[in-house]
Amino acid sequence: MGKWANRQMITSAQNSKIKLVRSLMGRAKERREAGMFVVEGVRLVEEAAKGDWRLETVLFDSSLSERGKSQVEGLRSRGVEVEEVSESLMKSLSETETPQGILAIIHFSNSPISNSLDFVLIPDQIRDPGNLGALLRSAAATGVQAVLIPPETTDPFAPKVLRAGMGAHFRVPIREMSWDEIQLQTKDMQIYVADMDGKSCWETDLRQPLALIIGGEAEGASEEAHKLANGKISIPMAGNVESLNAGVAGSVLMFEAVRQRRSKNSQLSV
Amino acid sequence: MGKWANRQMITSAQNSKIKLVRSLMGRAKERREAGMFVVEGVRLVEEAAKGDWRLETVLFDSSLSERGKSQVEGLRSRGVEVEEVSESLMKSLSETETPQGILAIIHFSNSPISNSLDFVLIPDQIRDPGNLGALLRSAAATGVQAVLIPPETTDPFAPKVLRAGMGAHFRVPIREMSWDEIQLQTKDMQIYVADMDGKSCWETDLRQPLALIIGGEAEGASEEAHKLANGKISIPMAGNVESLNAGVAGSVLMFEAVRQRRSKNSQLSV
Repeated sequence: MGKWANRQMITSAQNSKIKLVRSLMGRAKERREAGMFVVEGVRLVEEAAKGDWRLETVLFDSSLSERGKSQVEGLRSRGVEVEEVSESLMKSLSETETPQGILAIIHFSNSPISNSLDFVLIPDQIRDPGNLGALLRSAAATGVQAVLIPPETTDPFAPKVLRAGMGAHFRVPIREMSWDEIQLQTKDMQIYVADMDGKSCWETDLRQPLALIIGGEAEGASEEAHKLANGKISIPMAGNVESLNAGVAGSVLMFEAVRQRRSKNSQLSV
Repeated sequence: MGKWANRQMITSAQNSKIKLVRSLMGRAKERREAGMFVVEGVRLVEEAAKGDWRLETVLFDSSLSERGKSQVEGLRSRGVEVEEVSESLMKSLSETETPQGILAIIHFSNSPISNSLDFVLIPDQIRDPGNLGALLRSAAATGVQAVLIPPETTDPFAPKVLRAGMGAHFRVPIREMSWDEIQLQTKDMQIYVADMDGKSCWETDLRQPLALIIGGEAEGASEEAHKLANGKISIPMAGNVESLNAGVAGSVLMFEAVRQRRSKNSQLSV
């Protein structure tokens, strides 16, 4: 660590950077006002650095792996502000049980979303961070072009959602929007809401420009969602099972859309 | 509550029932040795009572809803031991943020599993309770006939798995087994392990008797799993996404099997 030796290590919880990290890892309001969020771990920082994201500051401690250290060096040489913090301070910031010794403050992306979208996900009233993260991860894996977040859904840039998303946040544009904005953004699309009483997803044509609304764990989709949708689709279930995990339900539907779109004979399985 | 008034309410943390609940909500070892587990909440207790499960004891407190109270009355008249506990004691036992005021100690089922199974799930090295619960829930929703739990998977009767399973535990037989036992149980089946390098699930025939192995979040499927499997299947993914949430991956594959089996024209979408 010779080359860092002449630098000052941050050890005080009162340091302005530390206070910023703490507030950004807390409430959504702080993230929105600052226009920034925090990711933890070598892999997520790597994903952010690869993309077009503006890194405000990177904090690391001496427990960081060699891979992480060379990443830190690369970022510093790119002009990113990099600061060493004490291990105990890092631990006090971290939300994970086994902190990797690195985190980054990142600016939200302002890049506009295309007006001719072909595949959009709308997670509605999703409250569980793990479920929202799983949905974002599946959205990235199915080539969804934008995830539109209506007002009642949990903040997609909360630490737990970022963790469960496993880098999806850096692969798919995610935008918080009012229902009016969502309506504008999806105006030429087929909009389906996942609903127990809907038509089987296996008998529904999902190959046209598609916006998929997935309702929350407790109350399902909102009234606004049902108003916006022009159809309901369901996943046929065995026995008396009434519902699926929201992350699972959305993912099954996204992959069914991909299956239909890839299918050589372009036939539904009816 | 007139009719309970003459009964003694449990208020002591040293009561033997309370100590039993606490140990059963803790380590898997305790559950295995006692042959019992604990579920919390009106809906899960209802599901257990509906099925063929032997309820050892039901504990409730005065915060229980009317629906819950009539359930408790029904169970008592069926001969189940029912005890009232103080609200503070119930709160100290509960793992949920908003306890519903009811929990039940339940005996494991010993009913044998059929030898001619058509659809089996094997969650391998799944460590996250939420993911295992989501897999069990999807297994119930896809008509899986048995879930076989190899040694390295987290205990399916842990409180968090029971919660995420949303009643699946009472709909699908779940059995912990050694790999030798799993081999016997699946000997006439097509055994696929989910693997990035596998053949597309959309191009694989999943209509024959099928055992599906889903590997864990960190290390994927074990060596034993790969030895047992006679094929690998994958879920085709967009971009550079490398993996899905384990609960999601397993669920997408289970529903793909159902889709193929229901398909009228019996054609794969190749």
